[in-house]
Amino acid sequence: MKSAYITGANQVEIRHSEQPRPLAGELLVKIAYCGICTLEQRLYTGQRSIYLPIVAGHEASGTIVAIGSGVTSNHMVGDHVALDLANRCHICPECLSGNSNLCENRFNKGQQVLGALSEYMTVRAEQAHLLPKDLPLEHAALTEPLACSIRSLNKVGLKLGETLLICGSGTMGLLHMKAALAMGTRVIMCDIDKGRLLDAQRMGCTATLDASEIDVSIQQVKDLTRGRGVDCCIITSTAKDAARLAFQVRAPAGRINLFTSYDGRPEFPIDMNTVHRQEYQITGSEGRTEIDFNQAVRVLSNKTVGVADLISKIYPLDSIEKAMVAALEKTTYRVLVKVE
Amino acid sequence: MKSAYITGANQVEIRHSEQPRPLAGELLVKIAYCGICTLEQRLYTGQRSIYLPIVAGHEASGTIVAIGSGVTSNHMVGDHVALDLANRCHICPECLSGNSNLCENRFNKGQQVLGALSEYMTVRAEQAHLLPKDLPLEHAALTEPLACSIRSLNKVGLKLGETLLICGSGTMGLLHMKAALAMGTRVIMCDIDKGRLLDAQRMGCTATLDASEIDVSIQQVKDLTRGRGVDCCIITSTAKDAARLAFQVRAPAGRINLFTSYDGRPEFPIDMNTVHRQEYQITGSEGRTEIDFNQAVRVLSNKTVGVADLISKIYPLDSIEKAMVAALEKTTYRVLVKVE
Amino acid sequence: MKSAYITGANQVEIRHSEQPRPLAGELLVKIAYCGICTLEQRLYTGQRSIYLPIVAGHEASGTIVAIGSGVTSNHMVGDHVALDLANRCHICPECLSGNSNLCENRFNKGQQVLGALSEYMTVRAEQAHLLPKDLPLEHAALTEPLACSIRSLNKVGLKLGETLLICGSGTMGLLHMKAALAMGTRVIMCDIDKGRLLDAQRMGCTATLDASEIDVSIQQVKDLTRGRGVDCCIITSTAKDAARLAFQVRAPAGRINLFTSYDGRPEFPIDMNTVHRQEYQITGSEGRTEIDFNQAVRVLSNKTVGVADLISKIYPLDSIEKAMVAALEKTTYRVLVKVE
Amino acid sequence: MKSAYITGANQVEIRHSEQPRPLAGELLVKIAYCGICTLEQRLYTGQRSIYLPIVAGHEASGTIVAIGSGVTSNHMVGDHVALDLANRCHICPECLSGNSNLCENRFNKGQQVLGALSEYMTVRAEQAHLLPKDLPLEHAALTEPLACSIRSLNKVGLKLGETLLICGSGTMGLLHMKAALAMGTRVIMCDIDKGRLLDAQRMGCTATLDASEIDVSIQQVKDLTRGRGVDCCIITSTAKDAARLAFQVRAPAGRINLFTSYDGRPEFPIDMNTVHRQEYQITGSEGRTEIDFNQAVRVLSNKTVGVADLISKIYPLDSIEKAMVAALEKTTYRVLVKVE
Repeated sequence: MKSAYITGANQVEIRHSEQPRPLAGELLVKIAYCGICTLEQRLYTGQRSIYLPIVAGHEASGTIVAIGSGVTSNHMVGDHVALDLANRCHICPECLSGNSNLCENRFNKGQQVLGALSEYMTVRAEQAHLLPKDLPLEHAALTEPLACSIRSLNKVGLKLGETLLICGSGTMGLLHMKAALAMGTRVIMCDIDKGRLLDAQRMGCTATLDASEIDVSIQQVKDLTRGRGVDCCIITSTAKDAARLAFQVRAPAGRINLFTSYDGRPEFPIDMNTVHRQEYQITGSEGRTEIDFNQAVRVLSNKTVGVADLISKIYPLDSIEKAMVAALEKTTYRVLVKVE
Repeated sequence: MKSAYITGANQVEIRHSEQPRPLAGELLVKIAYCGICTLEQRLYTGQRSIYLPIVAGHEASGTIVAIGSGVTSNHMVGDHVALDLANRCHICPECLSGNSNLCENRFNKGQQVLGALSEYMTVRAEQAHLLPKDLPLEHAALTEPLACSIRSLNKVGLKLGETLLICGSGTMGLLHMKAALAMGTRVIMCDIDKGRLLDAQRMGCTATLDASEIDVSIQQVKDLTRGRGVDCCIITSTAKDAARLAFQVRAPAGRINLFTSYDGRPEFPIDMNTVHRQEYQITGSEGRTEIDFNQAVRVLSNKTVGVADLISKIYPLDSIEKAMVAALEKTTYRVLVKVE
Repeated sequence: MKSAYITGANQVEIRHSEQPRPLAGELLVKIAYCGICTLEQRLYTGQRSIYLPIVAGHEASGTIVAIGSGVTSNHMVGDHVALDLANRCHICPECLSGNSNLCENRFNKGQQVLGALSEYMTVRAEQAHLLPKDLPLEHAALTEPLACSIRSLNKVGLKLGETLLICGSGTMGLLHMKAALAMGTRVIMCDIDKGRLLDAQRMGCTATLDASEIDVSIQQVKDLTRGRGVDCCIITSTAKDAARLAFQVRAPAGRINLFTSYDGRPEFPIDMNTVHRQEYQITGSEGRTEIDFNQAVRVLSNKTVGVADLISKIYPLDSIEKAMVAALEKTTYRVLVKVE
Repeated sequence: MKSAYITGANQVEIRHSEQPRPLAGELLVKIAYCGICTLEQRLYTGQRSIYLPIVAGHEASGTIVAIGSGVTSNHMVGDHVALDLANRCHICPECLSGNSNLCENRFNKGQQVLGALSEYMTVRAEQAHLLPKDLPLEHAALTEPLACSIRSLNKVGLKLGETLLICGSGTMGLLHMKAALAMGTRVIMCDIDKGRLLDAQRMGCTATLDASEIDVSIQQVKDLTRGRGVDCCIITSTAKDAARLAFQVRAPAGRINLFTSYDGRPEFPIDMNTVHRQEYQITGSEGRTEIDFNQAVRVLSNKTVGVADLISKIYPLDSIEKAMVAALEKTTYRVLVKVE
């Protein structure tokens, strides 16, 4: 079978290897589509390194082609699935607190969370979420990032009728936006890139803010919320101004979730006394649990959230290099690789 | 190794078989203690049958003696564990909704939820909850029923300062009581057996009611709650009067959980209009999830709930018949078998 | 000022009285629109009686025209408001448990929850919820029934991506539907009236069921949910078959809310053991709290839920008799009286 | 009647004035006991000033002696009450979000939140929480600080079996500790004052940490939690080291509540990336709602939490100066004034 191997900085190539066989408890999945997320981009550019050569890819959909022994779940050959390529031991303190996304053993030796830029992949049965046949497999490749967005939105406890500010209008910001609109909230998008804000408008956001003009933005939020501020914020951008704005336009008891992963250890642009007096709630979210993943599957299956307009380009596996380059461009949202 | 085989109605005997070996992902556990729960009692009397002969036992503690390949969790040989002998596929709709206790595949072929009345047992790593060494293993054998009680209490959303009525003062009712007292609530115990109510008093309940005198009991609840009724009820008894009382003494918006398993299909002793007008909440609970189990482990490990006074007798494995007979007596709470 | 007095069975007339003055803590509101709800209809037909003559009307919007002494809230003359004509003492056990809709003192002497079919009305400041000026006052007259629907939906804990069955496609069923769709769920409407189901389809429901064919409906639900059943149900119809269907098509751990008020004391069409084994959750909801009311205000203000198509007819106050007759017709949804 | 007037820095004296009469909706309460909280101490020393002369006092219990017109609640002359001297308009966005402690109008002109260091006081009916007669009125004077502690604990979502770290072992820290122990958690107390830690031990805490030795404390927490850290923390001390320790010993997904009011605007001793990666939750709490207050009443009424050992001294109203001086001493917890 063919796989895309990253072999060095800005080097990726197709190599052939033997098709794997499902061990006990495993399924063999023929990959259909795989997204190129920030992690894949960083592995490609060399900004991040795990080991070399490496087959990346963790946002994937596909079809079950073989079932190993001892699988007691409902999976059948031919089923369409979205892959939740995370390791969850189900018995560490984090898994047993309902936070399997923080599983202590998720990076233990011998486990993998990448590898979907390949024609076939073996996964544990619990990693393959069943999909209805009428959900296009290219849409299903966005299940994973949508699941992370849903976890993030659940952290702020978004309620029907509230107003949400999302800082950062990239793929992740827009996925948050689509899910939040589907939950019956008003969504204000904030970014420094006017093109992205126009896209956000086309996709239905309630209002947009230019992040480069903080004072104007603060006033706009006031106007939009009768002077009260937004009920909650999600930060999907690493820009320092994004966090600063978010902490300035919240209503009393406002909730903010830090979705983005920062380089280094940036300080909070707010003090402890204000958090105390205003009863703010600050949370972080990292990845997703299997329950978040399931919610994303349901939302996509029900057509409650549509992701077609977030798929900027689709390349065949053989054009993996072009796909990587396209994903790195500022004007693209998600770039998919069509593997099958 | 020795195991206790139920071979027919009121027939149980010790047989020898080869010690099992842990397969991939499994642990070999030397059983320390195993409780004789209602299920074991019914299998012994023949009131219920699965297949014969059968090795029963599902409330167990023990020590890890071997670890199979591919175990990525933190278990080590010598660790003490409480066994959560349930099957959870982690990928069916119930598991993915946070209700792994209702896993669609929990009774699928090839899986077992019994077998702890035996010197050794292989379990999947996720079924073995780690215990601190200073928790007596005989206490740990009550983790499973405590976990079921905690799930039940979580269903009614018990809050500090509330008043709870528990109908039925057997082992399960008393476990509920101990956990509810630990949560800072007042607990009223109700039973028809005066001896059990005396025990409940000795173990710290706030008040007791004689279930055979419903009118008196209703008045007592009023007196105890300034006429308002209890905030919530748990029904652990199959007696019809238990449910009737519970539905009559609830405060507005009261919550009631049906913990007990009924024979047949008993009707509700309340009408739909009253539930509507009073905003009652009725739930059921069945078994426990791994998260409930973990909460029970923590509560026992912290000595927040003590269970020593609920262990009526302990018999060695060779005296399994005596143990079964003792468990059937009305005056015993939990009877344990010391296996090791 | 003019008011509509119900003076006997099927008798209503306009009478004149002196305009009231706001006491301490009160506002004087000029009523704009008032809906004719089931309660007004029953008072008019004589099916229900409080005292005679009576000025009914409790679903109302209007404008503040005077403010009494000692009002410390933000209200100003000229503000548009939706009226929450409920009494909440804020100090009884129900109010202090977050269930002010069940306030022990809500019907105490000297308080009123009706009277909006009148040109002016005095209300306590806390009963007047501020509205943005761009929300049409006729839409605002539906705030109260929408608030009751939102409470009902909150009782079942509806989550993004779930499937909800609503039994009864009248005004209340459709309001539930609109709010549930806004929350990102699939909504299946069930009724015996084909015209109403067509309206539900036009307003965006996911699927419809003919309540007169229970077996067909059960199969349809299975087809729509991969055989699993719906996550939750709301019953807005008093028909016995509605409840029976709802209890038969729920997924494990399904939640059902009894929204409708029944005549008499109908039995549950389900037994206690099934609720226990399946972990069903049954709740009731009655009225709304001020928090529910506020959520309805926000949803209408944000245009998240539109109610224009639920307003069947609008009559001037002088045509109150025609309005009552129109409201009683089966083909109308909400009939409003334009008071101003 | 007699009242204690603060007339300047370190100046307090008894003055006489006419007994007030209850207006519409008000009760006249004969004050029994009033605590001297930090606010009273600061007003006395001049560290804080509102206006002069001022009658302070906001932690009070008493007896209803007269009822104004238009009171529709259940209050009766002779009832014992705990006073919730807060203003809640019930109609601002904060009140309508369930956060009446942040009511926009709570400090509006003409409203008061002090005044209980006086023989009589008029309050709105909703400010007087009914008490059982067998609860000593001196204990009831601690309802308000207990209510604030309960709100704080509810912010971290404390669950049975968890481990809580409380930084600061003064009156407020110990009240948190007592409530948290009552909820079935392990509580680790941290302070720089060895005497206070000994008191905490006497009152039942699980372990104590010396705040002056951070490294040792971090190791102790690890030992107490199998290396994992505490599930949650409450900060009741303004010491910078307190916050630093709290942020260093949390388990993944740990929750921390900032209960203390800081001078100035201290920075967070943690960075945004760590909050993101570890999914920490940071909240603040300020005051209490009527629902928190009711929970405190219930906990005291049920004897679930005892506060006798937190009342260091009781002085008659005529000895108000001695009471103030005693309250300022480091070795006292709560000092009460016996007014009646």
